[in-house]
Amino acid sequence: MITSKNNTQIRNVRKLIESAKERKERKLFVVEGKRLVLEAPPAWVEQVFLSESFYSFGKTDLRMFKKIEVVSDAVFKSISGTVHPQGILAVVRKPEYVLKGLHEDALHKEGSCTLLLLDDIQDPGNLGTILRTAEAAGVSGVIMSPGCADVFNPKAIRSTMGSIFRVPFVVDELVSVIEDLKMDGFTVYGAALDEAVSFREVEYPPLRAVVIGNEGRGISTSVLNSVSGRIRIPMQGKVESLNAAVSCAVILFYLDGMI
Amino acid sequence: MITSKNNTQIRNVRKLIESAKERKERKLFVVEGKRLVLEAPPAWVEQVFLSESFYSFGKTDLRMFKKIEVVSDAVFKSISGTVHPQGILAVVRKPEYVLKGLHEDALHKEGSCTLLLLDDIQDPGNLGTILRTAEAAGVSGVIMSPGCADVFNPKAIRSTMGSIFRVPFVVDELVSVIEDLKMDGFTVYGAALDEAVSFREVEYPPLRAVVIGNEGRGISTSVLNSVSGRIRIPMQGKVESLNAAVSCAVILFYLDGMI
Repeated sequence: MITSKNNTQIRNVRKLIESAKERKERKLFVVEGKRLVLEAPPAWVEQVFLSESFYSFGKTDLRMFKKIEVVSDAVFKSISGTVHPQGILAVVRKPEYVLKGLHEDALHKEGSCTLLLLDDIQDPGNLGTILRTAEAAGVSGVIMSPGCADVFNPKAIRSTMGSIFRVPFVVDELVSVIEDLKMDGFTVYGAALDEAVSFREVEYPPLRAVVIGNEGRGISTSVLNSVSGRIRIPMQGKVESLNAAVSCAVILFYLDGMI
Repeated sequence: MITSKNNTQIRNVRKLIESAKERKERKLFVVEGKRLVLEAPPAWVEQVFLSESFYSFGKTDLRMFKKIEVVSDAVFKSISGTVHPQGILAVVRKPEYVLKGLHEDALHKEGSCTLLLLDDIQDPGNLGTILRTAEAAGVSGVIMSPGCADVFNPKAIRSTMGSIFRVPFVVDELVSVIEDLKMDGFTVYGAALDEAVSFREVEYPPLRAVVIGNEGRGISTSVLNSVSGRIRIPMQGKVESLNAAVSCAVILFYLDGMI
């Protein structure tokens, strides 16, 4: 049992939680809590850490995980992001998807495929909620611009409620992704406020992608210049814009309902 | 100019920001930032506080406000909720609406009226986002259960992006509100996961209300027992539920698109 907060393994876990750079270099991330750990594909899980209390309670079947380490409750608390830790977290290998893979697999789904492109979504909670929403609305894959928050940030992961393990995603420059998607037959719609038609008035083809922009400034000019068309959500009252996750939900569930 | 952080007025502002009890007793709340202050109906604004820097910059027309107080930059920082304060906040009188008022005014809108009921929404950011979404989707009024987060909490207010000044709302026990609404001819739908039909398969009457439940446990049993019907959002993948603001957006914009 690990009883020192300065143990090398413990220090490494802490670095992975705190630093996006560390996560990038080591291609690992950390998920905390029973629910998320049990939703992780066992093959992706490098190591599971249990608090002494969680381990001695012994009610959870963890036989699918190859490497389990027990640590004292005090040590566990030092790596937990919550006030009342459940006593279980896992170090997980980052999935690696490729753009082509996102839609090639998806094309078998009744011949239709919706992709979601995110342009510099800043808030990790928003980003996680968007992934969760995308899975629920049947999106085949998500493409995030390099300026998006890190999806492996602990807050983003928590907000995905497990969708991080199930929705394929890549991080890539959106302008070149849009060019690729158009060549592959996709129509790409940018959610914008100006010079846009109502999202309800468009006839969407089976291969379609939707771009959602940054919380403050919307979609960047270069990306907006490459989309096939602009759609907007008509708003009543004096609301100037919607929360990014809300816009995403309204458009994606509309598309899902049309199939 | 106020130069002491211990000045009585400054202490009172701080209490209003920090304490829901204080806001309740004094029937006041605080909004910060140029945009929100300028969106506040001037008749509701009791007092505006400006930092010395904001005041000397002098670019903003504030003549509609009857009482303006200038404070030193250090004092302003002590009452600001942000790292880089803009230097303007206002103490605002809470609006007081009555349930009947929410739908009586609304009935003139093409004879249709959508109300939103919130059952113990816990997260202030979620609550604010829901108000903003409700305004954009043309909801006539929002009824919050007493177990909801305080809508006058600074984080909730920020998330409303000004809708707090425009969407009528009351805080009341939902079971009795639902009885009242039914007597007034409303059909009340609860967004639930079990024993519910798809929200897309319902023929909504012109007078309708939607109940959205708590982030973790959904709608409470007593409230669920009083609704006229249950609706659910069909979800793909392995998602168990959606974020409360997301569910709200999907259903409300669907209703708005049907009119």
